[in-house]
Amino acid sequence: MKQLTVELGERSYPIFIGQGLLDQPDLVAPYVAGSQVMIVTNETVAPLYLERTQAMFAGFDLSVTVLPDGEQYKNLETLNLVFDQLLEKRHSRKTTLVALGGGVIGDMTGFAAACYQRGVEFIQIPTTLLSQVDSSVGGKTGVNHPLGKNMIGAFHQPNAVIIDTDTLNTLPEREVAAGIAEVIKYGLIRDVSFFEWLETNIEKLIALNPEAVAYAIETSCQCKALVVSEDEREGGVRAILNLGHTFGHAIETHMGYGEWLHGEAVAAGMVMAADLSCRQGWISADDVSRIIALLEKSTLPVAPPKEMSVERFRALMSVDKKVIDGGLRLVLMDKLGYAFVTEQFESSNLDATLTCSSELSS
Amino acid sequence: MKQLTVELGERSYPIFIGQGLLDQPDLVAPYVAGSQVMIVTNETVAPLYLERTQAMFAGFDLSVTVLPDGEQYKNLETLNLVFDQLLEKRHSRKTTLVALGGGVIGDMTGFAAACYQRGVEFIQIPTTLLSQVDSSVGGKTGVNHPLGKNMIGAFHQPNAVIIDTDTLNTLPEREVAAGIAEVIKYGLIRDVSFFEWLETNIEKLIALNPEAVAYAIETSCQCKALVVSEDEREGGVRAILNLGHTFGHAIETHMGYGEWLHGEAVAAGMVMAADLSCRQGWISADDVSRIIALLEKSTLPVAPPKEMSVERFRALMSVDKKVIDGGLRLVLMDKLGYAFVTEQFESSNLDATLTCSSELSS
Repeated sequence: MKQLTVELGERSYPIFIGQGLLDQPDLVAPYVAGSQVMIVTNETVAPLYLERTQAMFAGFDLSVTVLPDGEQYKNLETLNLVFDQLLEKRHSRKTTLVALGGGVIGDMTGFAAACYQRGVEFIQIPTTLLSQVDSSVGGKTGVNHPLGKNMIGAFHQPNAVIIDTDTLNTLPEREVAAGIAEVIKYGLIRDVSFFEWLETNIEKLIALNPEAVAYAIETSCQCKALVVSEDEREGGVRAILNLGHTFGHAIETHMGYGEWLHGEAVAAGMVMAADLSCRQGWISADDVSRIIALLEKSTLPVAPPKEMSVERFRALMSVDKKVIDGGLRLVLMDKLGYAFVTEQFESSNLDATLTCSSELSS
Repeated sequence: MKQLTVELGERSYPIFIGQGLLDQPDLVAPYVAGSQVMIVTNETVAPLYLERTQAMFAGFDLSVTVLPDGEQYKNLETLNLVFDQLLEKRHSRKTTLVALGGGVIGDMTGFAAACYQRGVEFIQIPTTLLSQVDSSVGGKTGVNHPLGKNMIGAFHQPNAVIIDTDTLNTLPEREVAAGIAEVIKYGLIRDVSFFEWLETNIEKLIALNPEAVAYAIETSCQCKALVVSEDEREGGVRAILNLGHTFGHAIETHMGYGEWLHGEAVAAGMVMAADLSCRQGWISADDVSRIIALLEKSTLPVAPPKEMSVERFRALMSVDKKVIDGGLRLVLMDKLGYAFVTEQFESSNLDATLTCSSELSS
């Protein structure tokens, strides 16, 4: 088992990574606030891991809420089902919520914990690759609005993140690939040597080779933990974690939540960010080709859905959270393995990226 | 104009109290974060003060959301109307929300600000006595759930609180009285000399004599600001601000939100807290009589609705936020003008209080 720490002063917390962690009740007990625990999971994960997770918390006054599965349920209405249960079961301010599932469950459970009685504790037990390497770490929680993804939420850090890598064995291939998109992201924003490692080891990772998986998760979490420690509330550098996300959110909103997986939209978005960075003269056409090749090997999309027009992209991107007082800010690369946030790009280059991406996918 | 400060380190903010402040745009401008402002108000307040408030923010890119009026609309569904508007009008992370209205508008606007894009700035412009002396100060925000009041919310401090005491001139008498209940509360929890001042000056306050109003609001806000500075997130002493509220919330939940005004329920609840404190031997029967007399002069209820049974009270109080891991904690008085939080009271005394209160009101 590996242990990392997200350093945030009195809100610091550990990330445990290893096989079989779901069978270690002693690991989680110190991170429960009081005597009450509510596990929040979904209909897909419950039959696989709920029983073992219940056994982990057997010593506590335990309740369970099972939500429907899917990004399309990540909204205020579904969130209210968690509040209903908490109040029906009379959970106090000292309760601890446990998120058992992927990014949607983690984001919603974390947001429920942020808001219930103005804030209770929670623990992340992510069961998808995407949530293990990204959304379970860093305290971003929230739900979607029909007009924009993650528009309603809070910063609320978990007490601990428990990553049992065995849970990936039941994950559909498409979701493994979606998680790999975020893994590749870490190679692009801060760590070109990790990008090169991925170019060499991508087949092992896709095949869920345990050593490759452990290394990829640990490296990804370490990168995320460092960035979050530097900038918890995304006043600055943390925004680089959104490489590909402004384009990606536009795709997700256009398609309707749940049609494209988040990681798939981010994959296409990262290619668009790379394309724009190349048009700006910051990275080479060869860099872009390497990025596309790695994503294609991972069976990920490298272009947006063909029906998305330039106008549609422009409209959807202008409501993204990265828009500050009117100016569109994007995460771009000024060399392979180094991302930064900027409003300083040629609008004509962005148009060219949007136009050519549409053509590429048609 | 008076200026107080809520001391909370980098989250410190001013409270301005005076007549005609709605006509002073220079007062608010320094507290707006960016170029966008959204005023949130309700159907009752809008015809009275919206135009002047719009003029205050004339220099900004201004939007308005008008919500229905009433505690029964303080829920996630109405909150979503604010998010709809913010997204339709493309408000960015740098927007500033302005709460123009009473406690419901302040709590909901503050919670919308806490959650929109994971947190934006807001300004409180309270227009009722109750919100001026209580809910606009201290950063408690949130909405109700059918099973409990203020069960979903956040701590989110405003950038400034602007109290224009002229707005009380349009307030219905019943709501003035409801506000006086919270004013009396400050006399009971920390300041017996203020309680005595109220005994002498209650008629002036009811008649909205400007000097009496100014003194009562300033003294109340000063008391609240001090308690909040000591304990922002209610880990300890801040709970004394909830004197009468556990009983009061049970009344409000039982009656359905909006039937009893919050201040009315708190008035009855404070009498119950006084009754229980007396049964514990901590305050005298004469103290209880003085409290009842002051509330009655203010035309406030001094007992719960007669149909509320002991069992109903017990059930509703057990979901109140002051319940920590099973034990019922109440704010009681151990002398007139001094409140504290305790679980150490005789259960039989609580039963007697609940029983006699029911009889008293029948």
